Amino acid sequence: MQELLLRLQKFWTDRGAMVVQPYNTEVGAGTGNPATMLRVLGPEPWTVGYVEPSVRPDDARYGENPNRLQTHTQFQVILKPDPGNPQEIYLQSLEALGVDIRSHDIRFVEDNWASPALGAWGLGWEVWLDGLEITQFTYFQQAGGLTLDPVSVEITYGIERIVMALQKVNHFKNIAYAPGISYGEVFGQAEYEMSRYYLDDADIDTNKELLADYNAEAQRMLDARLPIPAYNYVLRSSHTFNVLDARGAISTTERAAAFARMRTLTRGCAQLWDERRAELGHPLGEVKPLPATLLPAELPTAPAPATLLFEIGVEELPHAELYRVTDAVRSAVQDKLAATRLEHGDVRADATPRRIVVTVDQVHPREPDAERKVKGPKVSAAFDADGNPTKAAQGFARGQGVDVADLQRLTIDGTEHVGLLATDTGRDAVAVLSELLAEVVHGLRAERNMRWRDAGLAYARPVRWLLALLGEVEVPVAVSSVPYGRTTRVHRTAPQPEVTVPSADGYADFLAGHQIVLSTAERRAQIVDAATDLAAGVGGTVDARGEAALIDQVAALVEKPTAVLGNFDPRYLELPEAILTTVMRKHQRYLPVRGADGALLPHFVAVANGDCDRELVAEGFAAVLRARYEDAAFFFRADQTISPAEHKTGLGKLTFAEGLGSMADRADRIAALATVLADRAGLDEADRVTLARAGELAKFDLATSMVIELSSLAGTMAAEYASAAGEPQSVAQALADMERPRSAGGELPTSAAGAVLALADRLDLLAGLFGTGAKATGSSDPFGLRRAALGVIAILRDRPELAGITLESGLREAAGVLAGQQVSVSADALAQAHEFAVRRYEQAVLDGGADHRRVQAVLPLADAPAVADRALADLDALAGQAEFADLAAALQRARRIVAAAGEVSADYDAGKLTEPAETALHQVFSQVRQNWNGGTVAEFAAAAAPLTPAVNTFFDQILVNADDPQLRAARLGLLAAIGDFADGVVDWQALAA
Amino acid sequence: MQELLLRLQKFWTDRGAMVVQPYNTEVGAGTGNPATMLRVLGPEPWTVGYVEPSVRPDDARYGENPNRLQTHTQFQVILKPDPGNPQEIYLQSLEALGVDIRSHDIRFVEDNWASPALGAWGLGWEVWLDGLEITQFTYFQQAGGLTLDPVSVEITYGIERIVMALQKVNHFKNIAYAPGISYGEVFGQAEYEMSRYYLDDADIDTNKELLADYNAEAQRMLDARLPIPAYNYVLRSSHTFNVLDARGAISTTERAAAFARMRTLTRGCAQLWDERRAELGHPLGEVKPLPATLLPAELPTAPAPATLLFEIGVEELPHAELYRVTDAVRSAVQDKLAATRLEHGDVRADATPRRIVVTVDQVHPREPDAERKVKGPKVSAAFDADGNPTKAAQGFARGQGVDVADLQRLTIDGTEHVGLLATDTGRDAVAVLSELLAEVVHGLRAERNMRWRDAGLAYARPVRWLLALLGEVEVPVAVSSVPYGRTTRVHRTAPQPEVTVPSADGYADFLAGHQIVLSTAERRAQIVDAATDLAAGVGGTVDARGEAALIDQVAALVEKPTAVLGNFDPRYLELPEAILTTVMRKHQRYLPVRGADGALLPHFVAVANGDCDRELVAEGFAAVLRARYEDAAFFFRADQTISPAEHKTGLGKLTFAEGLGSMADRADRIAALATVLADRAGLDEADRVTLARAGELAKFDLATSMVIELSSLAGTMAAEYASAAGEPQSVAQALADMERPRSAGGELPTSAAGAVLALADRLDLLAGLFGTGAKATGSSDPFGLRRAALGVIAILRDRPELAGITLESGLREAAGVLAGQQVSVSADALAQAHEFAVRRYEQAVLDGGADHRRVQAVLPLADAPAVADRALADLDALAGQAEFADLAAALQRARRIVAAAGEVSADYDAGKLTEPAETALHQVFSQVRQNWNGGTVAEFAAAAAPLTPAVNTFFDQILVNADDPQLRAARLGLLAAIGDFADGVVDWQALAA
Repeated sequence: MQELLLRLQKFWTDRGAMVVQPYNTEVGAGTGNPATMLRVLGPEPWTVGYVEPSVRPDDARYGENPNRLQTHTQFQVILKPDPGNPQEIYLQSLEALGVDIRSHDIRFVEDNWASPALGAWGLGWEVWLDGLEITQFTYFQQAGGLTLDPVSVEITYGIERIVMALQKVNHFKNIAYAPGISYGEVFGQAEYEMSRYYLDDADIDTNKELLADYNAEAQRMLDARLPIPAYNYVLRSSHTFNVLDARGAISTTERAAAFARMRTLTRGCAQLWDERRAELGHPLGEVKPLPATLLPAELPTAPAPATLLFEIGVEELPHAELYRVTDAVRSAVQDKLAATRLEHGDVRADATPRRIVVTVDQVHPREPDAERKVKGPKVSAAFDADGNPTKAAQGFARGQGVDVADLQRLTIDGTEHVGLLATDTGRDAVAVLSELLAEVVHGLRAERNMRWRDAGLAYARPVRWLLALLGEVEVPVAVSSVPYGRTTRVHRTAPQPEVTVPSADGYADFLAGHQIVLSTAERRAQIVDAATDLAAGVGGTVDARGEAALIDQVAALVEKPTAVLGNFDPRYLELPEAILTTVMRKHQRYLPVRGADGALLPHFVAVANGDCDRELVAEGFAAVLRARYEDAAFFFRADQTISPAEHKTGLGKLTFAEGLGSMADRADRIAALATVLADRAGLDEADRVTLARAGELAKFDLATSMVIELSSLAGTMAAEYASAAGEPQSVAQALADMERPRSAGGELPTSAAGAVLALADRLDLLAGLFGTGAKATGSSDPFGLRRAALGVIAILRDRPELAGITLESGLREAAGVLAGQQVSVSADALAQAHEFAVRRYEQAVLDGGADHRRVQAVLPLADAPAVADRALADLDALAGQAEFADLAAALQRARRIVAAAGEVSADYDAGKLTEPAETALHQVFSQVRQNWNGGTVAEFAAAAAPLTPAVNTFFDQILVNADDPQLRAARLGLLAAIGDFADGVVDWQALAA
Repeated sequence: MQELLLRLQKFWTDRGAMVVQPYNTEVGAGTGNPATMLRVLGPEPWTVGYVEPSVRPDDARYGENPNRLQTHTQFQVILKPDPGNPQEIYLQSLEALGVDIRSHDIRFVEDNWASPALGAWGLGWEVWLDGLEITQFTYFQQAGGLTLDPVSVEITYGIERIVMALQKVNHFKNIAYAPGISYGEVFGQAEYEMSRYYLDDADIDTNKELLADYNAEAQRMLDARLPIPAYNYVLRSSHTFNVLDARGAISTTERAAAFARMRTLTRGCAQLWDERRAELGHPLGEVKPLPATLLPAELPTAPAPATLLFEIGVEELPHAELYRVTDAVRSAVQDKLAATRLEHGDVRADATPRRIVVTVDQVHPREPDAERKVKGPKVSAAFDADGNPTKAAQGFARGQGVDVADLQRLTIDGTEHVGLLATDTGRDAVAVLSELLAEVVHGLRAERNMRWRDAGLAYARPVRWLLALLGEVEVPVAVSSVPYGRTTRVHRTAPQPEVTVPSADGYADFLAGHQIVLSTAERRAQIVDAATDLAAGVGGTVDARGEAALIDQVAALVEKPTAVLGNFDPRYLELPEAILTTVMRKHQRYLPVRGADGALLPHFVAVANGDCDRELVAEGFAAVLRARYEDAAFFFRADQTISPAEHKTGLGKLTFAEGLGSMADRADRIAALATVLADRAGLDEADRVTLARAGELAKFDLATSMVIELSSLAGTMAAEYASAAGEPQSVAQALADMERPRSAGGELPTSAAGAVLALADRLDLLAGLFGTGAKATGSSDPFGLRRAALGVIAILRDRPELAGITLESGLREAAGVLAGQQVSVSADALAQAHEFAVRRYEQAVLDGGADHRRVQAVLPLADAPAVADRALADLDALAGQAEFADLAAALQRARRIVAAAGEVSADYDAGKLTEPAETALHQVFSQVRQNWNGGTVAEFAAAAAPLTPAVNTFFDQILVNADDPQLRAARLGLLAAIGDFADGVVDWQALAA
């Protein structure tokens, strides 16, 4: 291992990097070292490589976990500016380490990085070596809240992982650290002891005091304009925070506050450093922008209609972007061509992770010439009474550089003008395309965009080359400093990674000859076919339909799929399927293989890129999975040595949020609240028994190692462990259900007891956190308030039978339970929470495509979302009916005049009404009111239908503002009563708007 | 520079060392890293090399000082166990760095290392490269209070210094750190900002809080039996202490307390680590002792009398030890030979830093045989009345294995015994010497001894080889595992560093042939001659007599002196001579060159070892001096931009000791106390004026950069700066004087005003610190109480004219002045201080060779040390005189009987005395008492002489214990009065003891 570190240092110093030392304060990653965090700021160049033992208290495992250490070794490289080919240099570094990059599957898989605490983010990849993440590769975009210009390339090697892979060992302790001495021998005791410190023995009060002192000292140093000492204290503060966090001593509230403080301090350091370097005159100089590529003085011409091939060469695109950009670029080319006069055939687009390719059939070599009318003065103004040209005509002619006599009479928009017929000469296709394709590149935009060395461009990943051919003619495309030509890049491990393309025609075949499948659909098909074959070989199947989303991803991660079958030890099949498949899909993007009975087989299909040593790669894939399964199995076993009830006692150690006690307190509240809500919803006895037991165990799995490790399995593991511990299936189901939905649109609870528990969970969170002053802002929702409210809405919409629980009553009951724990929630806070939830309903239905006005109309009903839903459905159904529109208009008419009159009492003296139209309305209304016992909007519309003509007649014949005040009051009162009657059904005003 | 670090890593890993990373907490040196501090403990092997950026807040200079940095880079190597040739490996490492070790002067100069805070120490050297200290090389003996077994070799390279020398740059900022980027560009801003933090901006309260927290957490982790986290907090605590110290926020009292705490904690960490490793079963194994060297089965024999040559090969000895061991080994050989029967001629010894050589002329090849009487029973007991052998005789004969008839009659000590005459066969010289010389090596002991790889040996430095020849015959000498033979080692840079010695004769010439001068006297003479010549070449001289001590040192630092002349920029001559010569002598061991007028010339003579490139080496020597002078000049200039009075205001920022205010408070007290003391001593007006002004400026130079840097120049710089600022010469002299004596036996004040100020300084320290409870213990005296008391004693002994100032009155006045600053000193504390000072007087005179009894006799006078001195001198003079002895005996006789009688009143009724002897004594005594007006002991002896016969006659003729109680009271009263009369002159009892 030490040899590898020395080789990396040598590799990078040979390439001009400086070496510095690890920092003398704990950092969580090489990024924290000021040699990265401060030096990436500002315009000065900086190329550096260094070892950084990175300390993550959270990863402390007493040295027992084979892959997880509280201190792991990073090798960190910063390249500022981006050298243009950092990936290629990186691959060379792997070769220098002895990695045979031609045999292994090395891939750049989308992985973006953001550290809110450091005000930093970047886009890039994790680098996979046969499925093992060995490096983080990032184009650093912002640090300390400052936008980086130039951008730095950050390469972070995970040394232990690389070494474990190279040395083929399964536990970090077995790494040969130096000749004759293992990693465990050198660092094992420290792993154990520091784990003890971080997880068990660190004194919480002392560390809190240290945290406060560090923060204060950091601020003092900022005030003294000393960014380095200030930043040192930010680092200490960050580490101490991590220690407290690992000790479970940080509540959600404290976390948010600590992050905000760190963000502010880091930003202060960054700004101050930037200022100080500017004051010092940027001693290391400034990175100069690259010179722009230029078009040749003379553009070539095409001899005949030909195929246009345009390739935008990029570094590995995120998989979603690959799909999006294929369409976007095709549309852009199509639209832009439409704005020219170039004749052309079909426009098609396809993409691989490294190229976006557009082909256009039959592009003509030139635009045809076009005639254009140049409009002068109207004929009536062009000639005087004598038929002589006026000054206007003369001026126009002079302006056009022709003799006035040459002006023609042209009919333009039906009016006669003098003017000219000019000819627009068609441009050469190459010239048109040169400009058009450059615009396409400039116009590239992804959901998340980054910058790199080429100035003025912003896209998902760097654009590294442009290739445009019209038949065999090269179309120069000058975009920033990106090179263009007839060269494309094939696999980086190919004997010749850059090749010249002879012609636009047959490009897909050309690429196929270089082991690249241009068509995404074809790659997908190849994957499905190969996976099916491989699975069949072991008597299994791959569910191509069920795994479609995953296969889409995989097809976007390779230029040529090489599917391999991997195996894992069948004993892992004892683990719950959810664990096995979560790890396979989410972490590794492997396809599960199932037997005829649908049960998992101990195999998987994974897809490598291009040619490689299949056996070697399959082994690597399997090794990664084994490590992850080994972790999971360890947790699974360990967790089951303790009963759910015992796990639950562990919740007392987990802080929930400031002022809201521990997670145990919260679980108690959820159970109590669920019981109250069950009364309201009228749950049957069986469900109540289930709910009571599930409530007792609520959240117990948060204390299990598996959920601490894979938080997405919360609920799932509760159900697994509860079942295993002999709890009834209904209880297990309720525990699984109470965590649902996990996200907007996620799976909903399938049992009534689970649904009520899920509601209780979320209502407690909302009432409690609003009660203690938490807020979600546009960009930040650290407490998950939004998700909680959306969950409540989704469940209540899904289960109209729970209508006894409304937002208002649910929150009120939650506040009552909180009060039982001496947490008081003000009426105002409850109102805010209610309003917040109603807004989520609004958002949910709008996102579902509902009409905006109708949504507004039913919002007053949203306290019972299922009721509002029904109203909305009715409104949708009634939307086309004239009668309903008339009714709405009539009601709105009544309301409007009442509103305009100011204070009006709806108690009216019917005796004052004497005119027929008004007595008629009174009678019709009385009848309607009497008949109405409540109901849906549709029922109301039917019941209130008689009002429409009566109201309309009333307005036609009656002057409401009678001189007699009593009469006026009675008339207005009648209208007000009608308005009140309609009120609460829907918001009529909104419908009218 | 980074290249150099990589090369060092490669060099050491190629030799089996592990590389670890710098520690992620600030450490003051590579030693602090647990990879050294903990791993040197216990029996496990550990060989490691690593870079360590070492943080010393005290060295912060805002990046302005060319050689001093708050963070400097060490490369630290630990070799455990000692490989036996660490110096040779080290030299190879220098070669690997591109240092031409044959051209340069590379030397190992005694430098021992101890860190009381870490409970750690070791013996070794600083390695000089042309006079520049580039490496610390230590045999680590103890850490955390634990004795190390095996011992580790610690090699600490000072990277910036090595690089500056190799790159020939004069300021660290100009080091080429990496291609195209300088050290200043990489680290300059951090140097400035961290200096600001350490010197100006660190918040003192916050750091004190951090210190307390760190200590507490360290203790907690010790209690939890987690040595690594505990040690982390010890390191933090140590760094934070250093920060506070650099901020001037640590008083002497706090320092002592903090060190004690750190020592305890470090010891705790070390013990706990040691225990934990033992509990883990020493996972890295245990270092096995080396096999002992064996003697051959048969020893050779010498053919004829021959010269014995015995060489003990060592690593570079401390210079004082070289002189001491030469004598010690010669004596040892001489004494041990005397205990054999080997005939031999002269025994001579000589030494170089790497060898102790004894030659013995004409050692005979064998011991002669010797006859020995074996004593049996007395003849009277050997034969019965019949002349037959008794059982005793028979038993004796049986015991001796002879027939009883063979017993002879032998006269032993004048009595006739039966017995035998046995012959002791003489042993071969080789056998005798083999044993004898081994004993000599085992018996080697220096003032400070160390252990190394060879078990059972302890000496100043490792013994690496033994060479013993008797003529041409090899004498095997088996000592531990040290190799022996006929091989010696010459210069390590010689083409063949190990050579075979043909014969004992002519060894000095043999060595001379290898460029080694065995005789220390000759090396000394060569140095003087060469220095004289070189100085003459520039018209100067070297004061060989004045610099004798330095030349002795230098002669002990080389095996062959190569004197070179070096030059320095004449502009440095503007600096005070004391600065220039202090730096030359103390730091560099260069000889100053003076002109005819005695003034310094801008040259020096330095002495390299053996052959080297003189020009290159002289340049190197000069460069080191330049750097040091540049520092000094910088301080000298900077200091003089501020007046002495302004400097003095800076004393307010320097804490003196807890409860005793700042250094300014102390200076004020000294001035006030000096004035009071001047009254007591009756200083004349001129001296008082001087004293008043000097008092105003007292201690101002403690705030100057020069004294902060070179504390030995305190006082000297005060005088310099005061003179330069226009103060009278007498004031400057008094300021210089007040710091004298600097150590026991040091130069004393030359002016009365200075002497009084010096007394005031030390009396204030004693009264103040005893008043606040400070104590000096046997091993530790952090406050310098012992030195202060010795100073008071020395000055008072030197200046009898100041007898108005006694210890008692001086301390009392000091307490009075302290009271003026609201510091109260109890009578008890004053008494302790007084007693402490009296003990120092006792120690001083005993160290001066005075007779123990007489010292005891004058101790009652020691309150005025000059008086006691005089009494002691009188006692010495009187010591031979019978009359005085009789007087003392008589007086003691009188005192004894009074003491035996219990309570006796010295008021006696002379009328009761009637016997002639008693009335005679009464009259003689009355006369003597009347005539005595006080005086010296000698005068008293003369005056009291008549008492002797009168007392003796009294005792001869009078029974003191008369029956008549009144008579008895009168007689005892008379004797008591005589005793009282003699009391206070000296302690007569002590004299009699």
